[in-house]
Amino acid sequence: MNQFEINILGCGSALSFIKHSLSSQIINFCGKLYMIDCGEGSQFQFRTMKLKFQQLNHIFISHLHGDHCFGLLGLIYTLGLFKRTTDLCIYSHPEAKRLFQPLIRYFCKEISYQILFRSFDPNCSELIYEDQKLNIFTIPLKHRVPTVGFLFEEKFKKPCVNIIQEMCIQNNLIKNTHKFNDFNLSNKKITQNISKKTTNFSRKYAYCSDTMYHEKIIPLITNVDLLYHEATFKSEDLVRAKKTCHSSAKQAALIAKFANVKKLVIGHFSARYSDELSLLKEAQEIFPNTILANKFMVLPI
Amino acid sequence: MNQFEINILGCGSALSFIKHSLSSQIINFCGKLYMIDCGEGSQFQFRTMKLKFQQLNHIFISHLHGDHCFGLLGLIYTLGLFKRTTDLCIYSHPEAKRLFQPLIRYFCKEISYQILFRSFDPNCSELIYEDQKLNIFTIPLKHRVPTVGFLFEEKFKKPCVNIIQEMCIQNNLIKNTHKFNDFNLSNKKITQNISKKTTNFSRKYAYCSDTMYHEKIIPLITNVDLLYHEATFKSEDLVRAKKTCHSSAKQAALIAKFANVKKLVIGHFSARYSDELSLLKEAQEIFPNTILANKFMVLPI
Repeated sequence: MNQFEINILGCGSALSFIKHSLSSQIINFCGKLYMIDCGEGSQFQFRTMKLKFQQLNHIFISHLHGDHCFGLLGLIYTLGLFKRTTDLCIYSHPEAKRLFQPLIRYFCKEISYQILFRSFDPNCSELIYEDQKLNIFTIPLKHRVPTVGFLFEEKFKKPCVNIIQEMCIQNNLIKNTHKFNDFNLSNKKITQNISKKTTNFSRKYAYCSDTMYHEKIIPLITNVDLLYHEATFKSEDLVRAKKTCHSSAKQAALIAKFANVKKLVIGHFSARYSDELSLLKEAQEIFPNTILANKFMVLPI
Repeated sequence: MNQFEINILGCGSALSFIKHSLSSQIINFCGKLYMIDCGEGSQFQFRTMKLKFQQLNHIFISHLHGDHCFGLLGLIYTLGLFKRTTDLCIYSHPEAKRLFQPLIRYFCKEISYQILFRSFDPNCSELIYEDQKLNIFTIPLKHRVPTVGFLFEEKFKKPCVNIIQEMCIQNNLIKNTHKFNDFNLSNKKITQNISKKTTNFSRKYAYCSDTMYHEKIIPLITNVDLLYHEATFKSEDLVRAKKTCHSSAKQAALIAKFANVKKLVIGHFSARYSDELSLLKEAQEIFPNTILANKFMVLPI
């Protein structure tokens, strides 16, 4: 099975950085590392987790609030000190380029690699990255500034032809593989099953932070294997959650339930709570298969 | 005696951030906090050391390399979230304002305090801050980009008149204070002693990082109580030190010796050394009263 795991570098909201560090994750997919968000200090956690900078080529910024992107400059600077030569792609709201490029030019004059800013429209879901094994889509969210989540969707793990072959053998349509090439693929039952089976092979991870409760994301994240959804507040602080365009733990769980996801991990915790167990309890009452994010947590998918 | 202590938030060079954190110090003088440099993550150490943001009103940036100033944006953002209202002064090379202000305007739209950039000429020593008890001067250094150190000089702790009064009583020139006003201050011996005594009251701290070996700073830091001088490299790596405009531990110690400082603390350690004891040994052979900086170290003066 393809390697597909989530490394949580930080899962705090803007003022809970001491305990949780600021928002950042590394998706390790087949040995390629994809960063989502880059709060201040993300490069410290990255190195503490013994991840490899040379495997990191793509950074996705959900929105331009400081706690999600102020680590970019330091990371870019450090990659330069390591004499990186490979391009680094940064996917973000178009304003990121205008804001960060003058500082990159000034502070990172001597870097030996290129930084390519790729912008997306935060108002619609777009396929923003694709390779042979992976698609990455944006998920428009609802926050105080334009914000997107990201959907990582594995492409079929096995070539279709192998799956067809397996199913034909299981159904006694052919007895061994050498006759496979002669087999007629027009059999409807088989092709339907193939379609179902290959869909099941496609694992999915969705990252949704920061956002208020926003049902429009449900069709985009239905059936994902793992959903990271922000749960900044408890329901008792719902007024504050609405005012700041964040979600409660209960709302994160409702989204997980309605989208029929397999597992929910909640994060982006407010600094006002001394522990997050009450957030977990609140979410689990709606969606039992919920866990709390922790910095340095690794979640295989 | 006035409170005068150095809190080291970080003392690593650009790539040794995991062990030492990046350059930043807080000078606590009479309960007012003055920050020197603000590498990425400085606000994390600041809060870990239980320092109080409301006591911090002045930040001094030695030079515009990322490892000395990339924590500024995060700190400014956080102070806004804490609803600060007091002005924050940032003293730096003039380029800092041009570079950081567009990002501050974009990311910190809602902050309720003013940021005042004060620039200095890095080519000469200037008095850049003064209040009733403290002077702060720049110390021009020699690095790859325009760089200054900072000299914190306590003003006389006691009003001069009290010192004169004390000395007159000690010398039996007057027997009690009520006659003091009539005393003739033309006595030369007394005024010389007064001058000596008041000079001794004036404690001084000098911060010199980043810099190559630069003897021109010696007259500016002579007799300081504590000198923080960078010692990025061992002498065996002197070629690299020269190329990158940094100092060896031996060179830091030579500066301390020639300037007749009371104590030397070395920092800004390269990531290439697994421990810094060999740097300490090298410095102590020249200047025995040397110590190694450590993050979270507090040094009273």
